[in-house]
Amino acid sequence: MTGVLPEADTISFARGIPSPDMFPVALLAESARRAVERDGRVALNYGPPGGYGPLREWLGDRHGVAPGRVLVLPGSLIGLNLVVEHLFRPGGRAIVEAPTYDRMLHSLSAIGADVVTVDRGGDGLDLDRLHGLATGEPRPKLLYLLPTFHNPTGTCLTIDERHDLVDLALEHELLVFEDDAYGLLRVDGDALPNVADLLRARGGDDLAVFSSSFSKSVAPGLRVGYLVVPESLGGPIEALATRTYVSPPLLPQAQLHDFLAAGNLDPHLEFLRTLLRPRRDTLLDVLAARMPPEATWTRPDGGYFLWLELPATIDAVELERRARDVGVRFVPGGGFFHGDRGRNTARLAFSYPSVDQVRVGAERLTALVREELDR
Amino acid sequence: MTGVLPEADTISFARGIPSPDMFPVALLAESARRAVERDGRVALNYGPPGGYGPLREWLGDRHGVAPGRVLVLPGSLIGLNLVVEHLFRPGGRAIVEAPTYDRMLHSLSAIGADVVTVDRGGDGLDLDRLHGLATGEPRPKLLYLLPTFHNPTGTCLTIDERHDLVDLALEHELLVFEDDAYGLLRVDGDALPNVADLLRARGGDDLAVFSSSFSKSVAPGLRVGYLVVPESLGGPIEALATRTYVSPPLLPQAQLHDFLAAGNLDPHLEFLRTLLRPRRDTLLDVLAARMPPEATWTRPDGGYFLWLELPATIDAVELERRARDVGVRFVPGGGFFHGDRGRNTARLAFSYPSVDQVRVGAERLTALVREELDR
Repeated sequence: MTGVLPEADTISFARGIPSPDMFPVALLAESARRAVERDGRVALNYGPPGGYGPLREWLGDRHGVAPGRVLVLPGSLIGLNLVVEHLFRPGGRAIVEAPTYDRMLHSLSAIGADVVTVDRGGDGLDLDRLHGLATGEPRPKLLYLLPTFHNPTGTCLTIDERHDLVDLALEHELLVFEDDAYGLLRVDGDALPNVADLLRARGGDDLAVFSSSFSKSVAPGLRVGYLVVPESLGGPIEALATRTYVSPPLLPQAQLHDFLAAGNLDPHLEFLRTLLRPRRDTLLDVLAARMPPEATWTRPDGGYFLWLELPATIDAVELERRARDVGVRFVPGGGFFHGDRGRNTARLAFSYPSVDQVRVGAERLTALVREELDR
Repeated sequence: MTGVLPEADTISFARGIPSPDMFPVALLAESARRAVERDGRVALNYGPPGGYGPLREWLGDRHGVAPGRVLVLPGSLIGLNLVVEHLFRPGGRAIVEAPTYDRMLHSLSAIGADVVTVDRGGDGLDLDRLHGLATGEPRPKLLYLLPTFHNPTGTCLTIDERHDLVDLALEHELLVFEDDAYGLLRVDGDALPNVADLLRARGGDDLAVFSSSFSKSVAPGLRVGYLVVPESLGGPIEALATRTYVSPPLLPQAQLHDFLAAGNLDPHLEFLRTLLRPRRDTLLDVLAARMPPEATWTRPDGGYFLWLELPATIDAVELERRARDVGVRFVPGGGFFHGDRGRNTARLAFSYPSVDQVRVGAERLTALVREELDR
């Protein structure tokens, strides 16, 4: 367990990316050809900043909004960045979860936003703290949330928490940005309603920004993410998009639309479940069998991630350095916090390695943690 | 000529976009399928911020640089924005041509850069003024140039001007950003060497940023632009790209690579010439026959644009308003200048309308100009 392994033998729990065997290659190859043949004269040209018309219609139907409210973007990160640019270029306060998606923290920091946090832990979201922030000064411009298969913890807010959030947003007219990149990747249990949908159903349509992506559910190489925005935000975000990249890549959007319109999404999601479930189960099994009792971890019902709280004496950054030498990678949890927290936490993505790799990687990791405790 | 025409009858010289009959639909449909089948497991996933490896190699070969110096981006505008962000976020002076690409002016203004100009007129580039600016204070961080089929004028810098520019850049260690979106679309005459290539040949490799795109030469809906950067710029630009969109859309890059590697580019460029040449010739013919003698215009050897200097008494913004009523669109020239200039200028793009439309549109426009002079 202590020799340095060649890079090729490294097993990575680090990146939240699909494994190559997840892609519907044959179906996408057909859709790729067909979309060019059928609508190449449109899809090969520039287009509106909000994306390929038929895909906006498909998504509008799915979310029960007018297609003009759907902005399709070259990946969901750029949508998040455009919203941050629009809201926080003049400054202002943002509420995020702790921990939260690290790239959102970078985006807010880069623009100089005033970032405050609410804990997202084993007991869910700290709604008392959130209530205090929503009523306090300065008035927050945005609450950024990952309600479902949260990055990095893999947890979901309960239905009660979702309703409480809607109450709170309506009461304080708080704009909620729901980041739902992983929502379709449910392995166990029943789907929960999106916070944005609940808000809309109660008249809070102008308080909900919903973000999702086909990077996790179909293929990241398409770079198709999207936003559902309140009417008031559509114009400014489209103007920013035009200044940033003229129009998004229509061709992959048309190719994805062909795939979706042919009814391929639901069967493909079922196929993804057959890959993700045993990877998650294997990871949970090895952790249960071999982690020292001082460690705890989440039990995600879907998504890509599991969150590990290591024994308090272990520094995850230091552990990660040693882990490389024994051929296993993960992301130390500190980067998912605003400020200096999470020293003994780690994010494990079970999406990329095979079941066998998950087993071996988790065995290497648990052995290393035990070694560290014995030092 | 004075009634208001329905929008559908409008002929547009406004947007610099290809016409739908320019796209190699059948070949791209095949490439689209083949790229997914052959390399879908790579091209459908996330990838390096610099883009799809085989396309970077293809472009590196073409430009005589290592593939790592080529950054493939979702359109060339985003590359330009990333370079501006990197260089001018801390402030600084940029030299641009007058007139120049309007979106570059927006990008520099938005970040608060100190913009100064050198005239790009009938006599070429004002090199004396440029020399003064290069030696003056504050020291300029960048010279942004469109040497070939310049947007908006359609003109090219001569070979002598290119050599003089290289001398100047080397003497003053001035970083040159060469925007070459239209260079491959030559209709007449022989190709001129890129300024970046000339700089590199004389040891000024670290002073040249070259930008191009397949939006004009193949299809904008692919959103494939690229930068060739000095080694020192590669890392920072890739880091900015990662923060902006994780990785660019690999799928359309792989599909374009299949198209290029199959040897389709040169025959396709030849096909584009057969479409662009008669459109340009028709526009020049109608202008020569019907414009009042007080007007002058450029005679582009390629690209998409022609630049019109209207009689001095005519305000192009006002003319454009009236032109809409008679079913013709163009872009008033003022927006291509930093500061208040170009009131009587206009950019006409001959890329989109058919030969018949070019003729009718130019007849409408020239009649309107004559009407204005007679008022």
